[in-house]
Amino acid sequence: MEVITRELTFSTSPDGGMVDVTSKIEEELKKTGIKEGIVTVFVPGATGAVSTIEYEPGLLKDFPAMLERIAPSDIHYHHHETWGCDNGRSHVRATLIGPSLTVPFKNSKLLLGTWQQVVFIELDTRPRQRRLILQFIGK
Amino acid sequence: MEVITRELTFSTSPDGGMVDVTSKIEEELKKTGIKEGIVTVFVPGATGAVSTIEYEPGLLKDFPAMLERIAPSDIHYHHHETWGCDNGRSHVRATLIGPSLTVPFKNSKLLLGTWQQVVFIELDTRPRQRRLILQFIGK
Amino acid sequence: MEVITRELTFSTSPDGGMVDVTSKIEEELKKTGIKEGIVTVFVPGATGAVSTIEYEPGLLKDFPAMLERIAPSDIHYHHHETWGCDNGRSHVRATLIGPSLTVPFKNSKLLLGTWQQVVFIELDTRPRQRRLILQFIGK
Repeated sequence: MEVITRELTFSTSPDGGMVDVTSKIEEELKKTGIKEGIVTVFVPGATGAVSTIEYEPGLLKDFPAMLERIAPSDIHYHHHETWGCDNGRSHVRATLIGPSLTVPFKNSKLLLGTWQQVVFIELDTRPRQRRLILQFIGK
Repeated sequence: MEVITRELTFSTSPDGGMVDVTSKIEEELKKTGIKEGIVTVFVPGATGAVSTIEYEPGLLKDFPAMLERIAPSDIHYHHHETWGCDNGRSHVRATLIGPSLTVPFKNSKLLLGTWQQVVFIELDTRPRQRRLILQFIGK
Repeated sequence: MEVITRELTFSTSPDGGMVDVTSKIEEELKKTGIKEGIVTVFVPGATGAVSTIEYEPGLLKDFPAMLERIAPSDIHYHHHETWGCDNGRSHVRATLIGPSLTVPFKNSKLLLGTWQQVVFIELDTRPRQRRLILQFIGK
């Protein structure tokens, strides 16, 4: 059994902008030489999240539209009183979606569906430079 | 340490229909012979999700009712323009809930609460035949 | 490779009350002697959840306010008919957020962001005494 920790870095667009990281994870998986196990995809930060989606232009608008319904940008957030910032919605959305995703793999291949991609979701109100942790466990 | 990958298959009912897979996971766990570790429960698809719930008839209605509030069936989804389909709500709901769940076990028993079951949640707009990945890691 | 299962216990406040368990997890991690791997943080129950957040007083109000929008306390839940209870909102909120979180660590340190804490989220309608499972896998 092996444990190998890697990191991806990339830049993002705000308020629900998504980055498809599937092929990068597959590349890193190949480099590890591990055949069967899990990769933990983890966001080290409180205003980003990770999930899977069919990565196509329509859903890249539909998902942020849903976030706007559940945590609107035009209401008051107490978070703004603490820091004088504007990203209260970013935080509550990130906590709801969650910062970790676990994807199993076998024969060095992620066990995703055909139309399913792993995405980092930027929830902050400005573009960011981001780090994403990938940790592979298996044999 | 061992890594063992299994698969469940079952049919579903649409728009929030849930399938209690707890006893199937426990059966597969027993067969592996692994005593202590985690099972990753993973949906290989973009319109299903996995979580836990107290599996009783009331909540099987209440949870879909909540999904209808946050991603209504009667609004426009850009996803429909891409494919001419009708399941935009299914996709955004699935991404929000998430496709992976990690459940720890010890002494060959899932460490669930007494009133807590592992459920596959069908979010598509039609009944489906589904696969669910189970991957056990432990010793 | 090692698998070590631990448990935290604590008391909570209802309807979105959060408990920052980050330093407790770090303490337990140090005791295991495992350097690199994952900790699975799991809620054995159907009315609590786990995620990460910037643990500051503003967000401790903003996150429950969002939950109230998506699963209001003043609507009818079918769950109440089953048991004569009042916590239908607790259940649907818990299923949406999810009971499991996986956090990677390296050099015996959780790979969290600077402003990111691991929190148990009490969703029940009354204060509870809670157990939280921590399972460390790594080497």
